[in-house]
Amino acid sequence: MVLRVGVIGGGQLARMMIPAAVRLGVEIRVLAESEGSSAALAATAVGDYRDAATVLAFARDVDVVTFDHEHVPQEVLAALVAAGVAVRPEPEALRYAQDKLQMRARLAELGAPQPDWAAVSTAEDLELFIADHGGVAVVKTPRGGYDGKGVRVVRSAADVADWLAAGEPLLAEERVGFLRELAQQVARRPSGEHVVYPLVESEQRDGVCAEVIAPAPHAGRVAQAAARVAVAIADGLDVSGMLAVELFETGDGRVLVNELAMRPHNSGHWSIEGAVTDQFEQHLRAVLDLPLGATDIRAPWTVMVNLLGGPADGDLDRPRRRAFADQPTAAVHLYGKTPRPGRKVGHVTASGADLDEVAFVARAAATAFS
Amino acid sequence: MVLRVGVIGGGQLARMMIPAAVRLGVEIRVLAESEGSSAALAATAVGDYRDAATVLAFARDVDVVTFDHEHVPQEVLAALVAAGVAVRPEPEALRYAQDKLQMRARLAELGAPQPDWAAVSTAEDLELFIADHGGVAVVKTPRGGYDGKGVRVVRSAADVADWLAAGEPLLAEERVGFLRELAQQVARRPSGEHVVYPLVESEQRDGVCAEVIAPAPHAGRVAQAAARVAVAIADGLDVSGMLAVELFETGDGRVLVNELAMRPHNSGHWSIEGAVTDQFEQHLRAVLDLPLGATDIRAPWTVMVNLLGGPADGDLDRPRRRAFADQPTAAVHLYGKTPRPGRKVGHVTASGADLDEVAFVARAAATAFS
Repeated sequence: MVLRVGVIGGGQLARMMIPAAVRLGVEIRVLAESEGSSAALAATAVGDYRDAATVLAFARDVDVVTFDHEHVPQEVLAALVAAGVAVRPEPEALRYAQDKLQMRARLAELGAPQPDWAAVSTAEDLELFIADHGGVAVVKTPRGGYDGKGVRVVRSAADVADWLAAGEPLLAEERVGFLRELAQQVARRPSGEHVVYPLVESEQRDGVCAEVIAPAPHAGRVAQAAARVAVAIADGLDVSGMLAVELFETGDGRVLVNELAMRPHNSGHWSIEGAVTDQFEQHLRAVLDLPLGATDIRAPWTVMVNLLGGPADGDLDRPRRRAFADQPTAAVHLYGKTPRPGRKVGHVTASGADLDEVAFVARAAATAFS
Repeated sequence: MVLRVGVIGGGQLARMMIPAAVRLGVEIRVLAESEGSSAALAATAVGDYRDAATVLAFARDVDVVTFDHEHVPQEVLAALVAAGVAVRPEPEALRYAQDKLQMRARLAELGAPQPDWAAVSTAEDLELFIADHGGVAVVKTPRGGYDGKGVRVVRSAADVADWLAAGEPLLAEERVGFLRELAQQVARRPSGEHVVYPLVESEQRDGVCAEVIAPAPHAGRVAQAAARVAVAIADGLDVSGMLAVELFETGDGRVLVNELAMRPHNSGHWSIEGAVTDQFEQHLRAVLDLPLGATDIRAPWTVMVNLLGGPADGDLDRPRRRAFADQPTAAVHLYGKTPRPGRKVGHVTASGADLDEVAFVARAAATAFS
């Protein structure tokens, strides 16, 4: 009796669950948005994840349904649950990853440290919030944003007049003067067991994760707090699977929750080479309610650099050869995507005892693709 | 333009090439013997690898054809080459992995150290060989043997009367009084570049690989010789891809070649967690003529234990849960096979700084499956 996991969404996160499923002896099936997706190898269906009938048909023969992204509508999730399908993370948890206003309100109830925030529906509300926070605010659309999309730094309500005109409440947040960004991964399974990954440092460029250092250097004073916050959120929201908590570290040594993701996350890709159990295997173990794996690091330092865009001619073969020839110790991961400006087409990881050297190797290999 | 590799054979070696292909951004297609094979996820065709038309049809759209096993007949390989298909390792090399008599003769030409041997076609020849070698010999069928099949230790020609009756020459070898068995992996690509893995110790039980320790402990005096022999064989036979050279270490510090395999090999599974570039990715790089990856170890010690057989009820879910719960630092690999007595259904790997502890973890996790 082989366990079967169904993944909704055919992006690189589903793709990177394939090696984990192969290792675990678990069957993986993917519902992809289109032919030729990143996870095409495991795609048993192509269709619209917003259509309940499509998703129900896909989910019929699997032991558990999980996700490549958080965009599956709650109505569709409810239909799955009503049909007796195990959905993990559970819809009740997932809605906090789908809606940033609900997330902020729930985190406030849980007492998690976070930036000042407010729901704003009018220009007047927003101008008040801006005035109260030094003349600047970060405004987010509650739903559908990712990689810097749906986020603006504003000094006037006029900067989001288009969003306000849509009539839905927006999330206004104080702009935090942070030292750096961190990410804390935890995994939790339905029976309650959880494991905590080392805290990592995440460097964002233009709202997109560019580089991750694991573990976060000089994190002594915040590592415990970050782990405590992430575990409290995983427990408080009853998360099953991987949870990534993106954090700001402030100059006075606090961590504030920026974003949540209830799935493997870009800030955890380092774990494929860098941790005893990588986030993709851990996610599958967690959603299948299997005992979780150790999160120990395999090397003192691991650095992950994203490959964004790629060569103008769209051919990744030449840069791959160059990266392999120049940096034989780097691990190159390509996602089977056609390069477009700014698109994540892969990532590179290097590990070792010397952080400077490890970072050099990862960046040098990534440079071959730019 | 995505590179495509076609693998003939749907066993666990093809299965473990899947994660490597996913990482590399290479498309993998498998010609499996039957539905529900170990590599079913990537199987684009099911058919008989001895049938040239089947293999030609499978190979039409791939950039290179490689192998899960060495049993594809030379006539079929010749048909592929005639059709312009890149076959790696090349048929000219592969025949030495297919036929142990040809291998012994060619290794003799190359001056590789090996046990005394002879081709024997009659009971008289064999009795002479036995008499010349202390009253005992190891007799092998030149073709088709694996995992102890096609190998007998004999004291009289009567012990292989059935094989002699078939009328084909047999390989007689001296029985080497070895200290232990070792395995040396190298990878080589068509343009000639090669890389050498650390020498490993391989413990065989009943002719089947039971456990591998990487690197081989106390191998100072033989490591260089083993590497030199393996590289000389890879160059001499013009091998493309992974080459595994199984060796005997003798009491007087020599290494003698026991067997060859021109593909990823059980003695190299440790490299998935234990080496910077694992043997499956390395094999794909090599057959695609991509620059080869570093073979450095990721941890001082890695121990791999095979899972042979499995629980009588055939259900691997319970032992998997037990292994995960008891040994959270072990990496468990299952091959998607139904357990049968003696069948390789998976393997377990553990890594770390202390060999005793690493071996304990790997063996303890494996015990959950017995």
